[in-house]
Amino acid sequence: MSAKALDYDQINENVKKAQYAVRGELYLRASELQKEGKKIIFTNVGNPHALGQKPLTFPRQVVALCQAPFLLDDPNVGLIFPADAIAKAKLYLSYTSGGLGAYSDSRGLPGIRKEVAEFIGRRDGYPSDPELIYLTDGASKGVMQILQTVIRCQGDGILVPVPQYPLYSAAISLFGGSLVPYYLEENANWGLDINNLRQSVAEARYKGITVRAMVIINPGNPTGQCLSIDNLKEILKFCYQENLVLLGDEVYQQNVYQDERPFISSRKVMLDMGPPISKELQLISFHTVSKGFLGECGQRGGYFEMTNIPPESVDEIYKVASISLSPNVPGQIFMGCMVSPPQPGDISYDQFIRESKGILESLRKRAHMMTDGFNSCKNVVCNFTEGAMYSFPQIKLPPKAIEAAKSAGKVPDVFYCLKLLEATGISTVPGSGFGQKEGVFHLRTTILPAEGDMPAIMESFKKFNDAFMDQYGNNIGYSRM
Amino acid sequence: MSAKALDYDQINENVKKAQYAVRGELYLRASELQKEGKKIIFTNVGNPHALGQKPLTFPRQVVALCQAPFLLDDPNVGLIFPADAIAKAKLYLSYTSGGLGAYSDSRGLPGIRKEVAEFIGRRDGYPSDPELIYLTDGASKGVMQILQTVIRCQGDGILVPVPQYPLYSAAISLFGGSLVPYYLEENANWGLDINNLRQSVAEARYKGITVRAMVIINPGNPTGQCLSIDNLKEILKFCYQENLVLLGDEVYQQNVYQDERPFISSRKVMLDMGPPISKELQLISFHTVSKGFLGECGQRGGYFEMTNIPPESVDEIYKVASISLSPNVPGQIFMGCMVSPPQPGDISYDQFIRESKGILESLRKRAHMMTDGFNSCKNVVCNFTEGAMYSFPQIKLPPKAIEAAKSAGKVPDVFYCLKLLEATGISTVPGSGFGQKEGVFHLRTTILPAEGDMPAIMESFKKFNDAFMDQYGNNIGYSRM
Repeated sequence: MSAKALDYDQINENVKKAQYAVRGELYLRASELQKEGKKIIFTNVGNPHALGQKPLTFPRQVVALCQAPFLLDDPNVGLIFPADAIAKAKLYLSYTSGGLGAYSDSRGLPGIRKEVAEFIGRRDGYPSDPELIYLTDGASKGVMQILQTVIRCQGDGILVPVPQYPLYSAAISLFGGSLVPYYLEENANWGLDINNLRQSVAEARYKGITVRAMVIINPGNPTGQCLSIDNLKEILKFCYQENLVLLGDEVYQQNVYQDERPFISSRKVMLDMGPPISKELQLISFHTVSKGFLGECGQRGGYFEMTNIPPESVDEIYKVASISLSPNVPGQIFMGCMVSPPQPGDISYDQFIRESKGILESLRKRAHMMTDGFNSCKNVVCNFTEGAMYSFPQIKLPPKAIEAAKSAGKVPDVFYCLKLLEATGISTVPGSGFGQKEGVFHLRTTILPAEGDMPAIMESFKKFNDAFMDQYGNNIGYSRM
Repeated sequence: MSAKALDYDQINENVKKAQYAVRGELYLRASELQKEGKKIIFTNVGNPHALGQKPLTFPRQVVALCQAPFLLDDPNVGLIFPADAIAKAKLYLSYTSGGLGAYSDSRGLPGIRKEVAEFIGRRDGYPSDPELIYLTDGASKGVMQILQTVIRCQGDGILVPVPQYPLYSAAISLFGGSLVPYYLEENANWGLDINNLRQSVAEARYKGITVRAMVIINPGNPTGQCLSIDNLKEILKFCYQENLVLLGDEVYQQNVYQDERPFISSRKVMLDMGPPISKELQLISFHTVSKGFLGECGQRGGYFEMTNIPPESVDEIYKVASISLSPNVPGQIFMGCMVSPPQPGDISYDQFIRESKGILESLRKRAHMMTDGFNSCKNVVCNFTEGAMYSFPQIKLPPKAIEAAKSAGKVPDVFYCLKLLEATGISTVPGSGFGQKEGVFHLRTTILPAEGDMPAIMESFKKFNDAFMDQYGNNIGYSRM
């Protein structure tokens, strides 16, 4: 019998090479256990609503009304919807031709793109052009489209931080390019050392790779660090010197849990630096409705903004977006509500502020609870989660545990995370899924479990971990940190 | 100054090669004219709501309630939502963990996938396995994912009907494969001649191309034909003999406007044929909420179903879907409402039937009005739109018009369609965007303008066309049809 087109050994090798640990072995095992009736705490993915975060009321009211425009004529609508949500729904419906059921322009609704541009303008203090803002089905889709535009062949390299969010490694594999790692320094609070970056590029070039783009994730995923202005300036200068396009993954810009380094966009730093960098450096930055205080992951709303990209290339990006016709329109409405929220004096203002502040303040508390919890465990050290939604503790595995993992045919941190899952129901992602220095092991967990559940979860973790360390011997021989 | 990564001459050549005429030159010009204040009738894309089709009430009620679950506790909710929509919303929310704002499994919500499987089972008379059904952000995204899985290199060929829907040519370019055309026979009501198909494959092989997959679009886009069972059997046998995976684009399965050849799925025909074909032929079929009577294009809901695909390949397809986390959840709810509509006895049943029947009956009338209108024009012949949403008339351009187009630096049918747009505001897509035999010219228009507007539109078309033919001389020299 001849081979068929979709037999495993016949399919695209790049598809097979792509790895995505966030929904990998650990997630699959957790799903199995859940089916068997075990209570699972899914902290493998930043999915706030799945762990009990309530949606903000106002954006949901607006989208519900847009979905059911016949309600706007119902005499009873005022009984269950506030007037400002009704007005906003009418405004957004006026942006469409045919409501949420019609394809929008492939770049998104012009009215929403204008609101995004105004938001960026207010944030950075420099006006932004709606024509250079494209709405997407979540930030991931935007990242994938841009990587596909950049990557021409296996010799094209993309600089990616390690540890990294595996969207990048997976998409680079899928499009047949090469990932060029640069290491974040765990000892320096996951900061970036520009000399390491230079060395990474030199090594890649030695191997014949053409480095074409650099990814930064700020605030960091999985590492949680917030980049300083100085660090950002160094990065921008470096990209300019090396003719790299900078891909700024800034989806956690509202998720900051310390006050020393508030979020500052790479675009603002770049424009502050003035020419030639402000006029020439190619920058694409990404944002989403899935993170921040909205946490509307399931709605799949995102955007990217292009700076200093030549118009002919912008046109090509538009053309490719057109092939999928349009991003989902409800997700675009959520984006509108995110960048253009209720204002002081609006009926829904107080509730909106109360809800959104409540979420961010609770996340800040949980970041502390989690970091402190990890640091109270045997052989575990963890940098503070300055931003984003994750803790990334280092787990110092004793040699006996590493041996046991080897015998079980598992990577050591996968071995540890599987045991943790079976013992406690806590579903994490092993550090190897994000990249880490050799011989050093981590896990990533979100800080999203409800505040009230956090003490019990951290206690359960500590109980498992400390018993694990006792079982395999506390002697870790040496410390890497 | 050195070249930068996103300079036009530096980006991925496959991106530049991809063409997507549905939103190409004609669409861009139409958008410009609209900005200048001209009234444009957008018939370039099957976007029913944009041309005034009202959304079905029931699915919109269900999704609105899912978006605003706090309404379910509001004592006034019963005043504006019927009880069966409330019950359905509660059911669908019980399928999620965290409502519409949480990522679902990357394959979609298990509860909805089960409903899709039941729908397919009822339709075909053979049970379907929910584990082999993946929900997507519209059918296009599913098609693109599968083509990416199949295409390994430029030598991999995909058989695509010509004329074709340009998603296929664009995606094949984007993923670096080769399109292998097979021609549909305009003289035989756009049917498929299996000998032509064999010849296409032989020619491709002679050029060194490995043909790996075959696309059928049934009902046809842009051609509107409905394939007969005999034709489908020949196709299935051919794919089996040649070890091709069959990609069945069946998004128009509810849009059929004649009674001689009702829609029959390629899966049903295959399973009716029995072994070995039913057990071995690899088939992937696609469906959507954008077409049929829902027409919910902007919601981006779709699915694909895999038959006879090895489990290891199914796992790879799952992994790649995971990289984008999950299809949008509201689109999944629309899919649920489409495959599991109100039943006799439900409060909303009569309204649902009235609305959906009304849309399909009107589309049937419009298919006739449009075909008849085209056939009343000078030098225009048009097969009847048996299904889907398009008319694809042949425009027999006089030699003088072809010369005039050449002088203007335009492809002849682009020239004609631009003139039509400027004169009447009717935005169509030139046949060259779909592929056509050399020296033969067409345009594609949707049959979606409102029934009441149709006479005026066809009159406006006829007036333009007949004057155009008079201007360039009626002598067309020879007939190709």
